[in-house]
Amino acid sequence: MDDIRIRLEKVKYRIIIMSGKGGVGKTMITVNIAEALALKGYKVSIFDCDLHGPSVPKMLGLSNVSLLANDQGIYPHNARNNIEVVSMDFLLPSEESPVIWRGPIKTRAIMELLSRVNWGERDFLLVDLPPGTGDESLSIVQFIPNISGSILITIPSRVSEHVVRKAVSFTRQLNIPILGIIENMSYFICPNCGAKYNIFGKGGGYRIAREMNIRFLGEIPLDPRLAEACDKGLSFLSIYPESETAKVLNEIALKILGLLGVK
Amino acid sequence: MDDIRIRLEKVKYRIIIMSGKGGVGKTMITVNIAEALALKGYKVSIFDCDLHGPSVPKMLGLSNVSLLANDQGIYPHNARNNIEVVSMDFLLPSEESPVIWRGPIKTRAIMELLSRVNWGERDFLLVDLPPGTGDESLSIVQFIPNISGSILITIPSRVSEHVVRKAVSFTRQLNIPILGIIENMSYFICPNCGAKYNIFGKGGGYRIAREMNIRFLGEIPLDPRLAEACDKGLSFLSIYPESETAKVLNEIALKILGLLGVK
Repeated sequence: MDDIRIRLEKVKYRIIIMSGKGGVGKTMITVNIAEALALKGYKVSIFDCDLHGPSVPKMLGLSNVSLLANDQGIYPHNARNNIEVVSMDFLLPSEESPVIWRGPIKTRAIMELLSRVNWGERDFLLVDLPPGTGDESLSIVQFIPNISGSILITIPSRVSEHVVRKAVSFTRQLNIPILGIIENMSYFICPNCGAKYNIFGKGGGYRIAREMNIRFLGEIPLDPRLAEACDKGLSFLSIYPESETAKVLNEIALKILGLLGVK
Repeated sequence: MDDIRIRLEKVKYRIIIMSGKGGVGKTMITVNIAEALALKGYKVSIFDCDLHGPSVPKMLGLSNVSLLANDQGIYPHNARNNIEVVSMDFLLPSEESPVIWRGPIKTRAIMELLSRVNWGERDFLLVDLPPGTGDESLSIVQFIPNISGSILITIPSRVSEHVVRKAVSFTRQLNIPILGIIENMSYFICPNCGAKYNIFGKGGGYRIAREMNIRFLGEIPLDPRLAEACDKGLSFLSIYPESETAKVLNEIALKILGLLGVK
């Protein structure tokens, strides 16, 4: 634990990104918030510790990355300007090998990594947690000292709402300040006729925010261009800086900076 | 292990529903396949063992269910005509309590349940596995003897493809026959102008099926009515039996029956 504290000493803000369930776009949002912050000039590191499906590297267009290591420790991979990454994916033998690891082994692997990575001087460490409130999330959160805050990701549906409430309880039980909640896949605007659809329902994120007394950070639309950029490992914010979706992502990044009191 | 074998003796087909990552609609599909089979007259049980976000009960419109138990064991809850359910959700103290359980405790809880439930005479047991290929999935799959087959759920994007390939390796390593793959959220047809959009990309499920030599069972569209029915715990197939989405779901159920050789 002491090692981990020392390794993280020069990282100013440590933020965990979590969701009650998977597939709500947690990784996409982590990567795009990292980008939004990096494009503003902040030095951002991402720790991708979703062992079952570490997809941060894919979204950043990385493949076959091996981390450099020497007797000083392991060095994060420089992905893009101002963005460095450590992903469990870099440690897996092949693209198709599943991580059939037992709980204690996984926990040890995460702890091991955290105690050996030279994060260096960074403004932000964004931790892309595994979905849910189980074992791995618990371990990781306990290993990281002085977490500045958590960001919760949800989608509009009630079924998802039910699950994200558990994540709120989880962070409160662990005494982590909640920065706020982001609702993803909030609506779709038909590019052809302009009609707006709430494909996954409406207002789940806002409802949780209000009822559980946490900040609502914004709603991100369903945008095929965003999905495509993530799929191809391209920077959505650089390609479509003027889009509505980019505006929303940037506003969320600004809110986070404001909440943390970053100048 | 012997107990579990005996408890499952009168269940003809045991199918596990899995995905490489969460949020691809695994639970929605489990519930709707169960419905499609139940509406054809088969007796279906669902074992909802996604400990982090057990949402089968919500989708079936159930709340505050307690399971009946006597010295013969635990009895599944009758949800709808021909559908019975056992969910980890029934064992959790409150809607908001997260399951911060350590791996070995979870494994024991699942094993305990499986060895005590009186499933009775059923045609199908559909097991809604936790997402991913970790600990819990591994334990559950090892506990269930004679699995008839697995169904893999994915969405069209490449990022998701990467992850689902791991699930394919996982089932192959465990010698479980793969019945096929279902692609969810495949397309959206604008109800206003009829334009068709591949919001999450195109063809991921089909590509995996072809490259990994497994059957492609069908593609389910993004349908706000389906999301709404699930959110409200209503039976989509009973409300919109004539819809394109219902047709797709029924065809998938028929394919499964065909593959298993059910008369």
